Amino acid sequence: MKNQLSAIKPLNQVVMRQTKNRVDSLVKPQGSLGALEEIVVKLSGIYGVTHPKITKKAVIVMCADHGVCAEDIASAPQIVTWIQSLNIAKGVSGVGALAKATGATVYTVDIGIAHPEKHPSLIDRRISDGSCNIATGNAMTYEQAQEAIQTGIDMVKLAVEEGHNLIATGEMGIGNTTPSTAILALLTEKSPFEITGVGANYPLEKLNHKAAIIQQSIENKKINLDDPIDIIASVGGYDIAGMTGIILGGAIYQVPVIVDGYISTVSALLASKILPNITDYIFPSHASEEKSAEMASSLLGLKPYLNLNMRLGEGSGAVLAFNLLEAACVMNNDMITFEEAGIGVV
Amino acid sequence: MKNQLSAIKPLNQVVMRQTKNRVDSLVKPQGSLGALEEIVVKLSGIYGVTHPKITKKAVIVMCADHGVCAEDIASAPQIVTWIQSLNIAKGVSGVGALAKATGATVYTVDIGIAHPEKHPSLIDRRISDGSCNIATGNAMTYEQAQEAIQTGIDMVKLAVEEGHNLIATGEMGIGNTTPSTAILALLTEKSPFEITGVGANYPLEKLNHKAAIIQQSIENKKINLDDPIDIIASVGGYDIAGMTGIILGGAIYQVPVIVDGYISTVSALLASKILPNITDYIFPSHASEEKSAEMASSLLGLKPYLNLNMRLGEGSGAVLAFNLLEAACVMNNDMITFEEAGIGVV
Repeated sequence: MKNQLSAIKPLNQVVMRQTKNRVDSLVKPQGSLGALEEIVVKLSGIYGVTHPKITKKAVIVMCADHGVCAEDIASAPQIVTWIQSLNIAKGVSGVGALAKATGATVYTVDIGIAHPEKHPSLIDRRISDGSCNIATGNAMTYEQAQEAIQTGIDMVKLAVEEGHNLIATGEMGIGNTTPSTAILALLTEKSPFEITGVGANYPLEKLNHKAAIIQQSIENKKINLDDPIDIIASVGGYDIAGMTGIILGGAIYQVPVIVDGYISTVSALLASKILPNITDYIFPSHASEEKSAEMASSLLGLKPYLNLNMRLGEGSGAVLAFNLLEAACVMNNDMITFEEAGIGVV
Repeated sequence: MKNQLSAIKPLNQVVMRQTKNRVDSLVKPQGSLGALEEIVVKLSGIYGVTHPKITKKAVIVMCADHGVCAEDIASAPQIVTWIQSLNIAKGVSGVGALAKATGATVYTVDIGIAHPEKHPSLIDRRISDGSCNIATGNAMTYEQAQEAIQTGIDMVKLAVEEGHNLIATGEMGIGNTTPSTAILALLTEKSPFEITGVGANYPLEKLNHKAAIIQQSIENKKINLDDPIDIIASVGGYDIAGMTGIILGGAIYQVPVIVDGYISTVSALLASKILPNITDYIFPSHASEEKSAEMASSLLGLKPYLNLNMRLGEGSGAVLAFNLLEAACVMNNDMITFEEAGIGVV
């Protein structure tokens, strides 16, 4: 991973300036296509071409279980991670259906499901049968955290080799807003009692209990806050770490990564602690309803494009942004310039 | 028009309840797909089927000139309406490119361009060569306003006959934020000096002049504020009235209409004064950057899905929402229920 990260090239500024000049000369008041204009300039810098084009899109869904479910912090039983992972692979879950709607490939990765069996429809990168209970110890070893991140990087490599040049992050892991919030609490030094949300319909009246478990998971541990891998090992999860890897993989393989909602954004925050300019390679998608999602996005400087009051996860919001990046490319490719139209610049 | 409006059927509440029950039983925490869930329930009520499906999409772009351009209220010369209308029809303008990106048909309607020629690529429904200068008189006669609305209704009929079951509004008319703001001032009794925005890069330092012209256009006229057609005739424009017709046409022909930005939303406000339950048939798209766009949307109770800082018009934001309505349908069609998945409801 270290060698891969140090080899990352910065965005191609020359190409970005050329694309910006073209976008400014298209037949529209300058700036009037807003975020679409910024998107295509950024894409051109990532790909290094003035007329970027999306070939194939993929959402990589990291599926893992969380030992902290033993503390009654989720409304669904842990077996749902296994069942829903299979449904995602079958295309009949939220992200499955929405990926189909946008013409995207779904890679469903078993990065650490707690289940006696494995399943051929899941990509088997299981590191262990779920992470450990963060309320009573570390989630995983330091080496396991590194392996989970590397798994995300490797999945981007595979997706790129299979022709995809636009990636979205997704996850399935009952209980995973709990480790996400523990991470966010550590990164922001905010109290879990301030930032904990209900996740997947966790009862509001039990929210204090969830926050208390998160508080318990971060106190009395010696965590090196300057080391995101140590944070993951202490209070994270395989799904979260895998997505951190996907996001780093985008920079390594020079493909843009669209970040889904709350849990994905926390993964992106971790990635930004490993590689500060990671935001050059990532795009937001939707504004999740989860309590601290907006705060997490703001910390990254991301302003979500979609306001749909969604909070499902799985990558379901990220895949809805595929079309926006594609539209930005078509805008740049198909619109003519003022000069071609015979009009002075407005 | 009157007969058409009185024949409008309300949404099919029985089908909507059935669809809502299905959506609530899909494998996701209830409500977690937010606006997508509401979209498909509403679509089912409009179409009268529990599994709505988008067949073909069309954006209808109403192109017209505005006599008030004589008052120096726009940054582009009036000839740009003609040139850009042709570019829209050719698919090389903003909405042209973005409609292509989303696989939509573009109907470009010459409803009142001020130009000596006509052009075969434009659908010829020209009512007159531009509307009159609202600063010095009425925009058009009462009959012309009725004809413009009927044109919009007729265009929806044509689009539906040609297989489309989802429509978006679009416009091209240099200067058309001026009549739009005059209408909004009349409907809200707000001062033009409070609500006038810069439109297509109108210089901020001249904004007071634009507001003064709008103020001049609404005072000293006897306008029946209870009659939206009189409002259009007094201070409107053919493009605006045409879009009001498109929106009414949605209800008449039972197809949903996606409303674009500021000018489209003002047209929808007028439609709501003609048919109070028109919001049953319309969907928002993007939050336009134009100053009073948010206010106009709120008055209709619409909460835009897309936050892209766009302000081009033409229907460019509305076409980007096509995919969201399609995605909502795929969600409903392709996701399985908890029962089918063998899980209790979460």
